This record gives sequence, structure tokens and C-alpha cells, in this order.
Amino acid sequence: MADYRELWSKLGIDLEKHDKLCAVLPELYGGVYLTQKNRPEGMNYFNLVVAEVHGLRIQELDDYKAQGGKVVGTFCVFVPDEVILAAKAIGVGLCSGSQFWVEDGEKVLPRNLCPLIKALMGAKVGGTCPYFQSCDMLIGETTCDGKKKAWEILNDYVPVHVMELPQMKREKNCKAWEEEIKEFISKMEELTENKVTVESLRQGIKTANAKRRALKRLYNLRKYKPSPISGLDVLLISQIAFYDDPDRFVEKLNELCDELDERVKKGVDEGKKRIMITGTPMALPNWKLHSIIEGLNAQVVVEETCTGTRYFENEVCEEGETIDDLVKNLADRYMKINCACFTPNTGRIDDIIKYVDEYHVDGVIDFNLSFCHTYAVEHKDVEKVLKEKDIPLIQIETDYSTEDSGQIKTRVEAFLEMI
Amino acid sequence: MADYRELWSKLGIDLEKHDKLCAVLPELYGGVYLTQKNRPEGMNYFNLVVAEVHGLRIQELDDYKAQGGKVVGTFCVFVPDEVILAAKAIGVGLCSGSQFWVEDGEKVLPRNLCPLIKALMGAKVGGTCPYFQSCDMLIGETTCDGKKKAWEILNDYVPVHVMELPQMKREKNCKAWEEEIKEFISKMEELTENKVTVESLRQGIKTANAKRRALKRLYNLRKYKPSPISGLDVLLISQIAFYDDPDRFVEKLNELCDELDERVKKGVDEGKKRIMITGTPMALPNWKLHSIIEGLNAQVVVEETCTGTRYFENEVCEEGETIDDLVKNLADRYMKINCACFTPNTGRIDDIIKYVDEYHVDGVIDFNLSFCHTYAVEHKDVEKVLKEKDIPLIQIETDYSTEDSGQIKTRVEAFLEMI
Repeated sequence: MADYRELWSKLGIDLEKHDKLCAVLPELYGGVYLTQKNRPEGMNYFNLVVAEVHGLRIQELDDYKAQGGKVVGTFCVFVPDEVILAAKAIGVGLCSGSQFWVEDGEKVLPRNLCPLIKALMGAKVGGTCPYFQSCDMLIGETTCDGKKKAWEILNDYVPVHVMELPQMKREKNCKAWEEEIKEFISKMEELTENKVTVESLRQGIKTANAKRRALKRLYNLRKYKPSPISGLDVLLISQIAFYDDPDRFVEKLNELCDELDERVKKGVDEGKKRIMITGTPMALPNWKLHSIIEGLNAQVVVEETCTGTRYFENEVCEEGETIDDLVKNLADRYMKINCACFTPNTGRIDDIIKYVDEYHVDGVIDFNLSFCHTYAVEHKDVEKVLKEKDIPLIQIETDYSTEDSGQIKTRVEAFLEMI
Repeated sequence: MADYRELWSKLGIDLEKHDKLCAVLPELYGGVYLTQKNRPEGMNYFNLVVAEVHGLRIQELDDYKAQGGKVVGTFCVFVPDEVILAAKAIGVGLCSGSQFWVEDGEKVLPRNLCPLIKALMGAKVGGTCPYFQSCDMLIGETTCDGKKKAWEILNDYVPVHVMELPQMKREKNCKAWEEEIKEFISKMEELTENKVTVESLRQGIKTANAKRRALKRLYNLRKYKPSPISGLDVLLISQIAFYDDPDRFVEKLNELCDELDERVKKGVDEGKKRIMITGTPMALPNWKLHSIIEGLNAQVVVEETCTGTRYFENEVCEEGETIDDLVKNLADRYMKINCACFTPNTGRIDDIIKYVDEYHVDGVIDFNLSFCHTYAVEHKDVEKVLKEKDIPLIQIETDYSTEDSGQIKTRVEAFLEMI
């Protein structure tokens, strides 16, 4: 890796602390990813992205900022990338998946909070994330209590604009979400000094749709028996989707899918158990559960999560004559995301049932980040419906520490034997 | 106590389990309340209400239902009592404050959830609360993640109507809350088959305002040194306010205040430390923290909580020619409640500062029910501002169990010595 210390220093990174983070990641990645056998050639690009995670892409952001460009951080699949693209800003998904940041997060947040929120806070408070440090503004949302209140604290460190996501999906809620998107457009215009036009917004939609289509293509390939790619590799690709350059990402992902098309033709089913993960997101580098599952005789074939299907399902309609038309298209698409922050959220259970069929799933793991109330409470309903349909299910609640890995492995092993 | 077993049985109460609850309460009440010295005579009414908590009032509800009346359960100070009164239904506040119900709640809810939500769920699931059993409908709200999702489960047991509370306080949010109140009116009209008229709604407002005024009078009396009434007694009165007949409650509370007016004239300050509690609500019979504080050389003189000032501050304007006018008045008043479910919620900190002055407070205890994210995260801001103003503060996070009582006592003792 090139020397980025000067760049990091300019960004206000705590270099000494950051060195510790940089020391951990390659070993973790090597152990989890590079030990996989027979990986597709196309994963080399994504290996490179990880190797350069705090390097090349940060340099790109810095170069863009040097030209007067703006960088905007987001934390949730509800914040419309299309608007960021239309305002010619660069959006980076900042959800944080490492235990490394939790300690700093707990300095300002209660310990009884989900690790994702503590980690994203810690990454900023501790000054150890160059993405965070590159952001001119953060875009929060009111999807859960923890994040909703965390923005108030983060706002002391960097400007935060919060979008109020409705809590139901009635017609008036969709209207309210349109209004929030319009406010977001104004905010982005103000920040970037670029006008969002019908054409730039339509182009933003096309770019985001292309990314969705490429991810959907990848997921469709997993429906084959055997899936031509590991769940671990797909998880990584999804995680990278949140911060990579979208056009390059789509090109590289499509190249990989071309290779996977060939693999499918030669695939020989080894009878691995096919697992769906549903529940809370897995932010980079949270590979814990996938790594446990695929270390056993099983394969993750679909994730009904925000780092899975919820991110790419349903394209935004590209037709429309006015900004209002396109904003309505955006609202329509985003309000179809079946997140547990809505009440009710029966659409999620419909999705799970549908994916069990489409991806030929043998068993479902309801994955819950500790202290995430919405998904934890929703488990009861998921359990009820899957039981009625005789679909095997276990719930795994965990955080970013590795202390419970042995215990989780034992539970997953028992689950695989049962199904 | 009269024999209500037939009534309970009719309501579908689990009699055997309920007996256990009935066996615990008198002892707890006796130990915490009846051992207090020199209580006002006027507390006798409230003693009676507690003694008959599952008796007389339940009989009243049953009598009302026998005449075709409806009973509606609520869980939050945001649900406008005025509408329930205008539709000639009886509203009962069902927030549950006993560890007794937690176990049943944990059968359907995650353990990592606030005890209040687990207890209210357990009270219904276990069939041990005659108030719950008397309800024709529950009115939920989207104030926090835990409750928002719990309604989905409760709805399997009893019809639940959920009001979507906005998460911010912008003008459009107030408008949206007006719409929610209008929907609530329709829902109540449908349930009760009584039309809500301008006059019945105005009367509802007057009744609710009278209750607010009486509680405000009580709280104003606590501003004297010494306060003429214990914090424990005020807490009990606030808790009873949620389910007692409002007219009788106001009458009895005003009688008590007349007596306290006399006490104030004869009061001799014993130099007890004057404590404010801010934070999460304390539902009946959660007297844990007050009991610890007042067992030491201190007195709780104000609660900035939902079972305190948030319940009664700000009257609803009674002027208006149409339902729309009155609904706007309701929305205006309810949107002034400074709950941590809003972002931002700086008004709460302004309130705390104001009350410290008005109630001559020596120290503030930020009380947090375990796993209540919104108040837990907001603590950081409360801490920052109180530190700037040199106002002593500690945070106490606890649930309904008594396991940590000794530890809390030690911490409060140390705090009192410090201030």
C-alpha cells in the first residue's frame, strides 16, 4: 500500500490509533477471505478495494474535494443516493462494522446500544475513519431511536441533515417522504452549489438503478445450485457498493457476473445447506456470521437485510417530466423497502417467504445486532409465519465482539444438522 | 376489600396468578407508603384507591360497559384524553410498573427491552390486569421503537389503534399530528357510536385542563421549603391520575391541596436536600427510586417525566368555533411535550434548567429505565448543559427488579453528600 499518512494527517486522523486499525484488517481479511478456495478471478478487484480501503478511494475523495467537490456520508438505505449524484456530490455509506470503533463510541453513547451505532459514533469521535473525516455533511434519518438521537451528538462534530422517515406506509406517509426528499434536494443544492435538474436527477436515478441491476444479477446467480459464489464474497461486494465509485463498481461487478455465468454451467452440487440471513445489516468488516456459517457445510445464498436485498430490490422509475415526477418515483421506490422501523411491516415476512422459494433456502437465520429493538421485536412475527410454513429458523443475536463466536458456531452446527 | 373474584373471572383474569399479584401489593404499599410520618389527611382517598386498585374502579368500568359504554387503554401522555372523553368513553392509562408482569412479557418480547414495555405486554399476555381486560380498544403511538413494534403483537390480543407521532417539531409535523388526532376522533366515534361535537370536545378539553390545573397546583406547593408533601405521595397521585375518574380525582386532589396550603404556613425547613428526577416515566407501582431517595435525608420536589410535569404542563386552549379549531388547539398543546422521542429535543433541557430554579433543586437525578434508548442517548446533552451551569447530576439506569436497590442507595447517598 502506498503511503497515505500525509493525506490522513491532513484529514485530522488520529494516526497512532489508526495504525492499530490498519494492523488488524489485513489479518482478518486474509483469514476470512483469502483462505476461501476456488474464488472467482473477478474478486481480485474487490480484494484490491479492501487492501486500499483507507487509501485509493480516500485519495479519490480528496482529489474531488480539491476541485471543489463535496462528499456526503450516509448510514441507511433510505437516503436516496440519486439526489447526491444529481447534485454532483460523492456519497459514501458510513455504517461501521468493527469492534475497533465501539470503545470510542461508548465514550459518548450508552453501552446498551447497537454496535453499529456505537461504531459509527466511535469512528468519528476517535478520528480513525478517513471516510468520516472526508465528509462535508452527514445525512441522518429517523429509522430507529438509537440513530435518531445519535445525530444530535454527531452534529457537534460535523454538520448533519436529518431526514424524517415516516413510521407507517399510508398514502399520506408517502407524500411526507416526497417532501423530505425535496428538502434533501435543497440541502444538497445549498451544499454543493449545483442545481439539481430534471436531467441530472434522471441521470442519478439511472446510475443508481444500474447498480441495483448489477447487484440483482449477482443475487440471481446465487439461485443456482450450487451458487457460483460464496456468501462471504457477495457480502463483501454489497458492503463495497456503499462507498465505491458507482460506475466502476457496476463495470467490475458485471465482469464478475460474466465469469459466474460460466461457472454456473460447470457447477456440481455438493449438497451444502442453503441459508438465508434476514434481519439487521452487516457493515464492513462485519463478516462474523457468514464466516461461521460457511466454515461449516453450508452456504449463505441470500441476505434479506439492508446490506442485501433491501439495498437493491425495486428500481426507481426513470420516466417523468418534472422534478416532482421524479421525486414521486423516488418516494415510491424507497417506501417499498420493508424495514422493521415501519409499523406494521408485514411486507418483510412476505419477502422472506418469497426468497425461501426463489433461492431454494433450507433454513433461515434471523440475525439481530444486540439492542436493535425493531428487528428483535419483529422476530416473534417472523417466527410465527415461518413455523406455519414449516421453514426452519433460528435467531442469533450478537454484536461485533468475537467472544460468542464459539457459541454461535455450536448453535449453527446444531441448526444445520436439524435441517 | 370486597370480593371481586366473580368480576375478575368474567373479565378472563387468570385468578390464580392474579392472587399472587394481589398478595404482593399491600405489603409493598404498606412498607413504602404507610410508614411515612405525618402524611396529609387528604392522602386517605389515594390510599383507598390503591387498596381498591383492582376492585372499585374495575367495578365502575364494568358498570359503564354494562350500559353500553366503552373503555379505552392508553400508554402515553401523547394520546389526547380529550378525545376519549368527548366520545364518552373511559380512558385508562395502562403503563405498567411492576416486575410481576415482566416474566410474562418476556415470553413474547426480547429481554433487552425496557421493563415498562415488557410489563405492559406481560399484563395482557398473562391475563393478570383487570384494566387491560376491561379495554375494548388500546391506543398506541409511535413514540419509541419498543412500543411501536409491541403494538403489532398486542393487536393479536385486543384491537389496537396506533397514532403516528411525528419525530420532529416542524410546522408540517404539527399539521401531521392534527391529522392523526382527527383520525383518532373518527376511530373513537366508530367504537363508541357517539359523535364527537364541538361542545363535547370542548367539554373534554375543560375536564382534562381541570386535571392539569389541579396537578399544577400540587406541584406549585412543592416549590415551598419544605415541600408540604413527600415526593412519594405526589408520585402516587400522578400515577392514579392516569386511571381514576377525572372529576372525582380533581375534587379529591384540590381538597388535598387546601390542606397543603395550611401546612405550608406551618412548615419548618429541616434542610433536606431537594431532588429533581428527570427522564423516563414511573408507572404504578414503581416507587423504587423515590423510596430510596426519601429514605435518606432528601426529598423529591419535582419530576420532569411523563408521570410528572410532562403530563400536566401547558393547558389546551378552550376557544374555537369548529372541531378543526379545537383539534389545532390540542395539537399545539401536545406538540409542546418535550419527550426524547423528538429530534432535537432541546426544550427538555430548558425545562430542567427552569425547574431547578423554580423548585429550588439541589441536585438532579437522570432516571433511565434500562434499554430506553432515546433518554439514554439524550443523557449526554443533559450532562453537558447541567455541567456548564454547575448543577449536580447523576444518572441512574435501572429496571423493576430490586436486585440493584442497595447499589442505587449507595450511589444516591454519595450524591447527597456531595451536593
